Amino acid sequence: MPRVAIIGTGLIGASIGLGLKANAAGNIEIIGSDRYRDHARQAEAARAVDRSEPNPAKAVEGAELVIISVPILGIREVMEQIAGSLVPGAIVTDTGSTKADVLRWAAETLPPHVAFVGGHPMAGKTEHGPRAAEATLFEDARWVISPPRHTPPDAVDVIHSLAKTLGAKPQFMDAMEHDAYVAAISHLPMVAATALFRLARGSEAWPELSLLASTGFKDTTRLTATDPAMAHDIMLTNREQIVHWLRRYREALRDLEDEIASGADENALFRSISETNLQYTAYREGVVGRREVHDDILDEIPEPGMMDLLLGGALAERARELQKRADERLSESEREMRYLGRQ
Amino acid sequence: MPRVAIIGTGLIGASIGLGLKANAAGNIEIIGSDRYRDHARQAEAARAVDRSEPNPAKAVEGAELVIISVPILGIREVMEQIAGSLVPGAIVTDTGSTKADVLRWAAETLPPHVAFVGGHPMAGKTEHGPRAAEATLFEDARWVISPPRHTPPDAVDVIHSLAKTLGAKPQFMDAMEHDAYVAAISHLPMVAATALFRLARGSEAWPELSLLASTGFKDTTRLTATDPAMAHDIMLTNREQIVHWLRRYREALRDLEDEIASGADENALFRSISETNLQYTAYREGVVGRREVHDDILDEIPEPGMMDLLLGGALAERARELQKRADERLSESEREMRYLGRQ
Repeated sequence: MPRVAIIGTGLIGASIGLGLKANAAGNIEIIGSDRYRDHARQAEAARAVDRSEPNPAKAVEGAELVIISVPILGIREVMEQIAGSLVPGAIVTDTGSTKADVLRWAAETLPPHVAFVGGHPMAGKTEHGPRAAEATLFEDARWVISPPRHTPPDAVDVIHSLAKTLGAKPQFMDAMEHDAYVAAISHLPMVAATALFRLARGSEAWPELSLLASTGFKDTTRLTATDPAMAHDIMLTNREQIVHWLRRYREALRDLEDEIASGADENALFRSISETNLQYTAYREGVVGRREVHDDILDEIPEPGMMDLLLGGALAERARELQKRADERLSESEREMRYLGRQ
Repeated sequence: MPRVAIIGTGLIGASIGLGLKANAAGNIEIIGSDRYRDHARQAEAARAVDRSEPNPAKAVEGAELVIISVPILGIREVMEQIAGSLVPGAIVTDTGSTKADVLRWAAETLPPHVAFVGGHPMAGKTEHGPRAAEATLFEDARWVISPPRHTPPDAVDVIHSLAKTLGAKPQFMDAMEHDAYVAAISHLPMVAATALFRLARGSEAWPELSLLASTGFKDTTRLTATDPAMAHDIMLTNREQIVHWLRRYREALRDLEDEIASGADENALFRSISETNLQYTAYREGVVGRREVHDDILDEIPEPGMMDLLLGGALAERARELQKRADERLSESEREMRYLGRQ
């Protein structure tokens, strides 16, 4: 029976275990390993793993596939611990939120008779630990695969299959490129949420503010709940990219502040907000990926439901005009517009 | 039968209608009025109103209570339209997101034989229009009540009862104070979300970013979907306060950026993130309102579930120490800590 070792059976590791048990074609034996005994016990109780082995070096013995899903700053240590016990031909992957450092550590620590392929499932939830694990956690989520140069294609195929088996959408990406992208789309939102909560929490008016906060504030700040160890590791391993995007975010805020403060042209402000709103609606309705040709059209096209959104506003008449023009263009380009990316 | 007029039967107006029908003690007749025929029809179909009357001046005839729930910049016009038709003793309220301008307009336009009390139910959802209306929309939400000076207490009582009837928590607040608070807790998050989406959407890497975005990005940017007419009206009527909080937000981001960039002291960064995380967990678990005395304790107290949050991190040992110390202090002050605010 093929053996898989999962080092780190928190939310992600245990969810992988559950997903493999539920979806893998043949029988596989899953050995879990977690430095925290309660996590190990919970993963066993949830049947995410067949058995637990506290020592990672022993857990990987005889395993054809090893999945490291510990916080990033723990990955190098795990690699050092298991390096001597990996069988020839073993395939090692990880689930860390940054990839450049991880690939470097793999090159430095793992023996040449195994293959390493970096991975990053773009899924998660607010709860942590194996008790929150779900077999369906990765369904329809992107699973970034970052193979180092000269990785045997077979090893890449195995990680590709792993992602597909768990219901995820594999996406190949260079490690540096990945780190730059997640800084913008994942780490910046986390930092922006944290700063927003800190500002409100640090205000003298927090007692009143906290009473007035509705779901909008809660959603916008939700990522403040990110596991602090994970947040810390991300900030250290992707520092330069995060700082870069933080600077650009402050500029974007400054631009919007100027728009609001100037008040010179009400129409311009309304048009500008409406345009962003239309783009956001398109995005939330699934218009993602490459569509360079239609970018200029999309910017003005109301998606289904937009008229509802715009109705009821004092300035809705303007939106109606916008829609009328867009409708004319929509009929020509409807099919192409729905093109959902490269893959 | 007492008659209530609701001018503007979008999400909020129609939800008030449904809530009154479901919860009001006696029979009431509800007249709706909406400038958009489809909204009027949908509100009737949902039985949020007994009948619709397109002309606001006619809709308020004989009404003891008039609720204006149109976008803010439409409120003054509605007041002018209905001023001549209000019966003596009628009570007028609104549901606008800012209050200082609304109180000024009421003073300028409404006749002396009626009473105006400003209101702001702090509830909403992403969907708009009467089709999204729910009788339970206001349940457990704050309902800010801002009476002008010298308002007859009876009129204030009626609006207080209205909020209670709909399941909301009434909260009295000065109009200027309200506008400052909502700028921080409601309008700033909306603007921050919009700037974050704009930055990512405007990036050359947007095709890749949009594919990688997971629920974190979606939650953090969700308020970008705010009805653009409503967002525009808010930005105009609460401009100074929003600009003030935007400046402070950019400073908060700058501070966090410095913490991340400096990298001088890993421990300091971890402690700082953990502290914010603990505060956030406490907030999300319901610790809101006034609790000055316990502020210093709270900052370090892990809430139930925190250990799960912290477990699995490479730095979890430090969190365990923190918890141990906090546990000792918790037992002394547990009861007081749970004190949930002033009311």
